[in-house]
Amino acid sequence: MPRSNAPYVQWEPIPQPVIILVRPQMGENIGMCARAMLNCGLTELRLVAPRDGWPNPAAIGASSGADLIMNNVKVYDSLEEAGADLNHMIGTTNRLRGMVKPIYTAEAAMKHCHTETKSGVRMGIVFGPERTGLENTDLAICGSVLSVPLNPDFNSLNLAQAVLLVSYEWAKIARMAEAEDLQEIPGYSEWAKGEELTFFLKRLEQILDKEGFFRTEELKPGVLLNLHTMFTRQKWTSQELQTLHGILTSLTTDFTAK
Amino acid sequence: MPRSNAPYVQWEPIPQPVIILVRPQMGENIGMCARAMLNCGLTELRLVAPRDGWPNPAAIGASSGADLIMNNVKVYDSLEEAGADLNHMIGTTNRLRGMVKPIYTAEAAMKHCHTETKSGVRMGIVFGPERTGLENTDLAICGSVLSVPLNPDFNSLNLAQAVLLVSYEWAKIARMAEAEDLQEIPGYSEWAKGEELTFFLKRLEQILDKEGFFRTEELKPGVLLNLHTMFTRQKWTSQELQTLHGILTSLTTDFTAK
Repeated sequence: MPRSNAPYVQWEPIPQPVIILVRPQMGENIGMCARAMLNCGLTELRLVAPRDGWPNPAAIGASSGADLIMNNVKVYDSLEEAGADLNHMIGTTNRLRGMVKPIYTAEAAMKHCHTETKSGVRMGIVFGPERTGLENTDLAICGSVLSVPLNPDFNSLNLAQAVLLVSYEWAKIARMAEAEDLQEIPGYSEWAKGEELTFFLKRLEQILDKEGFFRTEELKPGVLLNLHTMFTRQKWTSQELQTLHGILTSLTTDFTAK
Repeated sequence: MPRSNAPYVQWEPIPQPVIILVRPQMGENIGMCARAMLNCGLTELRLVAPRDGWPNPAAIGASSGADLIMNNVKVYDSLEEAGADLNHMIGTTNRLRGMVKPIYTAEAAMKHCHTETKSGVRMGIVFGPERTGLENTDLAICGSVLSVPLNPDFNSLNLAQAVLLVSYEWAKIARMAEAEDLQEIPGYSEWAKGEELTFFLKRLEQILDKEGFFRTEELKPGVLLNLHTMFTRQKWTSQELQTLHGILTSLTTDFTAK
């Protein structure tokens, strides 16, 4: 569609979710994701281990002038690092088998997301690589899951199209909705960040390793996946994580003291 | 996003609108439009005077296997011919100045469209060339106009992205309406019962009591309240509670064994 000649009404800056692309393959897709984001008023893009490195000339070309985003892309080695300062990540996938997390449609997820960001919660929306989508280990550290029930005979969305759908649903609720009533969660600013949960889970893993909890090295990855899933499904406050640490300390100190 | 492993439910054929691309320039965009359409269950694609002729190998490549559409594309010399057998065409544009037609958002237009097609009306949705969008002469023969109020500072959508948004809104109303609400993990019947959580919390309390976790009897009720709050905010599966029990056992058995 061409640029608008409609009466100009600038969008005021409002709190927004971060878009995170995990191991994206094609630079063109990264650029088109940026364009789609900016179409919908989203500006924060993070990349985890982009295949062809960064910066990527192919991405710049495909972004069609979305410089505001492209000049401020942040790059990380792992999803955990990319989400370290966020309170909650929403993973996107079409593989729902065995998923023990809340699953939202794009519309429901973005309504929830907008409610959260408005009250100061930092949200991330996570997209996997073009060919395979998010790994289970990525999904395990996302607090909830977004899935769009598209044509069951042909449901593989192009990466930039997936980013557009989600960004569009966010813009509909955050920018275009006239009088949609959303329940404001009373300003809760104490949700733990990703790095706090990561630290707790690492410590738990170390302690359990020492206690022989995982039985064998072969069993460990699966058990660890379950642990990550069950502890990331809900948001914790920083204080609650301190309580969990306190429990671990209480149980292990006495033990090691003997 | 990857292909779905979700329970397979084929979409039954239902009446659908036709997508019409007027003077499209890039073959890649035509192919990506086809892919986006099929993602959303739309299969009828018509082209008016495609710049590079037809068939177009670049379009086939970009369609990612949307052969059902690509093998049945119809090509016309003019929009009038492309719409000759249709009852109503909806033109898409972002240039609203001087428009004397009903203007709909994508959602409203597709609700209207679905109501019409269901009752046998043949509808077409018309998209202009990448660089300029639809001419006024094209819009003049469309019965209504669709416009998406995107970021006023950056509202130029890629052609395939525009087709996706509209197709997606059609699929939402025509295909996903019943699936719109938050899905609580389809068919998951293994949520723990209250008594299982109570049993876990009692055991945790006893162990922590023994370890002196609560410091004093005065502090205990408040700490206990916090523990109950944080462990009941989310639902656990029975298996997850068993894992939590396993952690407690693992940490305390070693301790009591010494």
